[in-house]
Amino acid sequence: MVLPNDTNTLTNLMGGRLLYWMDIVAAIAAQRHANSIVVTASVDNVSFQQPIKLGNVVTMEARVTRAFNTSMEVLIEVYGEDIPNKTKFKSNSAFYTFVGVDLDSKPRKVPEVVPETDIEIELYNQALQRRQMRLVLAGRLKPSEATELKNLFNL
Amino acid sequence: MVLPNDTNTLTNLMGGRLLYWMDIVAAIAAQRHANSIVVTASVDNVSFQQPIKLGNVVTMEARVTRAFNTSMEVLIEVYGEDIPNKTKFKSNSAFYTFVGVDLDSKPRKVPEVVPETDIEIELYNQALQRRQMRLVLAGRLKPSEATELKNLFNL
Amino acid sequence: MVLPNDTNTLTNLMGGRLLYWMDIVAAIAAQRHANSIVVTASVDNVSFQQPIKLGNVVTMEARVTRAFNTSMEVLIEVYGEDIPNKTKFKSNSAFYTFVGVDLDSKPRKVPEVVPETDIEIELYNQALQRRQMRLVLAGRLKPSEATELKNLFNL
Amino acid sequence: MVLPNDTNTLTNLMGGRLLYWMDIVAAIAAQRHANSIVVTASVDNVSFQQPIKLGNVVTMEARVTRAFNTSMEVLIEVYGEDIPNKTKFKSNSAFYTFVGVDLDSKPRKVPEVVPETDIEIELYNQALQRRQMRLVLAGRLKPSEATELKNLFNL
Amino acid sequence: MVLPNDTNTLTNLMGGRLLYWMDIVAAIAAQRHANSIVVTASVDNVSFQQPIKLGNVVTMEARVTRAFNTSMEVLIEVYGEDIPNKTKFKSNSAFYTFVGVDLDSKPRKVPEVVPETDIEIELYNQALQRRQMRLVLAGRLKPSEATELKNLFNL
Amino acid sequence: MVLPNDTNTLTNLMGGRLLYWMDIVAAIAAQRHANSIVVTASVDNVSFQQPIKLGNVVTMEARVTRAFNTSMEVLIEVYGEDIPNKTKFKSNSAFYTFVGVDLDSKPRKVPEVVPETDIEIELYNQALQRRQMRLVLAGRLKPSEATELKNLFNL
Repeated sequence: MVLPNDTNTLTNLMGGRLLYWMDIVAAIAAQRHANSIVVTASVDNVSFQQPIKLGNVVTMEARVTRAFNTSMEVLIEVYGEDIPNKTKFKSNSAFYTFVGVDLDSKPRKVPEVVPETDIEIELYNQALQRRQMRLVLAGRLKPSEATELKNLFNL
Repeated sequence: MVLPNDTNTLTNLMGGRLLYWMDIVAAIAAQRHANSIVVTASVDNVSFQQPIKLGNVVTMEARVTRAFNTSMEVLIEVYGEDIPNKTKFKSNSAFYTFVGVDLDSKPRKVPEVVPETDIEIELYNQALQRRQMRLVLAGRLKPSEATELKNLFNL
Repeated sequence: MVLPNDTNTLTNLMGGRLLYWMDIVAAIAAQRHANSIVVTASVDNVSFQQPIKLGNVVTMEARVTRAFNTSMEVLIEVYGEDIPNKTKFKSNSAFYTFVGVDLDSKPRKVPEVVPETDIEIELYNQALQRRQMRLVLAGRLKPSEATELKNLFNL
Repeated sequence: MVLPNDTNTLTNLMGGRLLYWMDIVAAIAAQRHANSIVVTASVDNVSFQQPIKLGNVVTMEARVTRAFNTSMEVLIEVYGEDIPNKTKFKSNSAFYTFVGVDLDSKPRKVPEVVPETDIEIELYNQALQRRQMRLVLAGRLKPSEATELKNLFNL
Repeated sequence: MVLPNDTNTLTNLMGGRLLYWMDIVAAIAAQRHANSIVVTASVDNVSFQQPIKLGNVVTMEARVTRAFNTSMEVLIEVYGEDIPNKTKFKSNSAFYTFVGVDLDSKPRKVPEVVPETDIEIELYNQALQRRQMRLVLAGRLKPSEATELKNLFNL
Repeated sequence: MVLPNDTNTLTNLMGGRLLYWMDIVAAIAAQRHANSIVVTASVDNVSFQQPIKLGNVVTMEARVTRAFNTSMEVLIEVYGEDIPNKTKFKSNSAFYTFVGVDLDSKPRKVPEVVPETDIEIELYNQALQRRQMRLVLAGRLKPSEATELKNLFNL
């Protein structure tokens, strides 16, 4: 529930507070998949479409979409809800990446994701594109070598 | 300064807490440029490369790189510093987008950015590519129409 | 997730912090049933059986068991989970009572609860006993007139 | 003093925040009696009769009423005060139970309570009834064997 | 009680956190004397002699020593206590000045203080010296005109 | 930025919260000079001249003015800024004293300050007077022996 402490001077939920909550919820999903402590490696582009107001209830759903050796991609979807007015709306969604670590902070292998439903399979397949996007944005992959991304741009 | 309350169970600064601070600092830079209240519209991909530890000092530098009518792109760069050990390192950087609003939360025009130094001009010019990237990722622009992005992929 | 800020000097979740979270979660369930703002009227006896540790994940399930004109009883069940060790345990449960109010803080009628499953029917039926217990404990009903409670003591 | 951060959307003190404060104050009273670290074992029924408003001052008085080997019962009484309006009112009261522990979290014996005033003697004597109530509510004592409670119901 | 969130990296209570608590406690004493809202005007020199540790209990005693038209001087004394070890020590003391205000933030007259005990009379009499010290330090009184202070320096 | 959580019932920044922030910022300056952990030893008289409002931005500048063997004096200056209204004002300033310590909390020598600009030299020279003032106020130096202070009072 959005309390006074969570709001900006317009009495909307602050973007930064929401990112803080999303990080914790996504980390729990990643922990559960990896059965280990996890640390946040990155967050993909997040858009805030509709403000969440003081007194609204925030619901978050997180799922691990794909694992890459020691890292996992997590999709988190965020909904705002004004219960007295019976309105619920999608606020935003984001992809987080977490790395499974042991108690010495050393990365450790995490289990594969086995997608089952159509939506899980689609998320699993597109995860490669998003991973290349992250590597390009972090300067660790040349755009010209990002083969999956080139497909995205119809080339 | 990273205090016990800001850390995870590995006594590192939590990713979500850092995003919360980055949002506030970037918003101040945007406010100063727009001379108005601002709301967070989006955050681009953020990578956390090196953990910031309990007791470290966090320094952030934010600057408005370009304005697009009612919105502004802000680059924020984050450094961690272990003062007793005399080490300082770049932790990460990110692009935030803010919208200037009046007291009724209605978007209002913000001033142009006039870049002067080489680095300012480069950030200004590349801002178009990043903006197209955001629109593509938000599903509001078809990848095949993202002309600036296609250049990025060297085609 | 239990963070350093939530713990006592034994690095266990503080009882008071847990009660704070339980209040918020139970209030959301009550809001959803009443479609109105709600205020906490009472909390029944809460026992803390097993400490929840730093880094554990706390899961709460709340459901409205019965409505009494303007008030609702909510059962909340709390679980602790040590994900890396794959252990999950019931920490405690409690009954909260909330009153539905309008924006002037005046009580307003809330919908009836229609129990369906066996467990829902049992919770619904026993709610009268618990309500008498609360009234006795608050000094608003004489023990000798608490007919439902007398049944409980097998007389 | 009730600050904006402690209030719900009606600008009243949140029930959960009050329970958090009550837990800390009651724990200090128990610590002082036991001369040891203590952990919260249970809270009895708490009713919130009159809302405490933003800007009010909250006063709490806690006293250990009786010890049971390793555990102690603490009565805490809570008052709200609107100083500019010169009004002070009793908000609620509750019985907490704490267990004295050593640094390994093992229960340790706590000193007896020696009641002196009439009110202390009454609280001391009734503590047995409340203890049976807790054991019944926690499912650790059959209602039919709760001899002290039966007296309460005049049987 | 000093909780993990209140401590620095040496697990001592942070000086700034203590000043925050002192401000709230002193403000309550001033409110009670003035029967109005109050705002902090100044804090005199505060020395931190002995660190207060994680798990210690902090006790504060505040009293209004003298009123000056719309302002009041409050003496606050702070004690730390390690209950399991049965040690209690004076941590520090300070003089705060508050101004009584109405709801428009305009200063309003506050009642005189009538000192009764020897210690109250001494605090009342010396308040003039402290007030001159504050005015000199704030650049609002020339040192050469601070007649009360000159007495202090035996001239 | 002053958020709802930082304000009193007049929606101004609480004095105690500001002191908390000032302590952290001044400590960072002291750490940087000493290249060690530091603990707060004292704060000199602080006056709050103009309230800082909800939504204002707070800027702080801290510099080490002089070192005395194991301790350092830090001047911190605080500004409030209402960005949409383009007003910036000096809120207050204060002198903090910190002691450099090693990991066992033992004081350790800190480097000398070498003042260069006129303002630095003035701050450096007057630091002796302020130090005598602190010792007098803490009862560790007789007023009649405070030779530097006597000069201040033009004698």
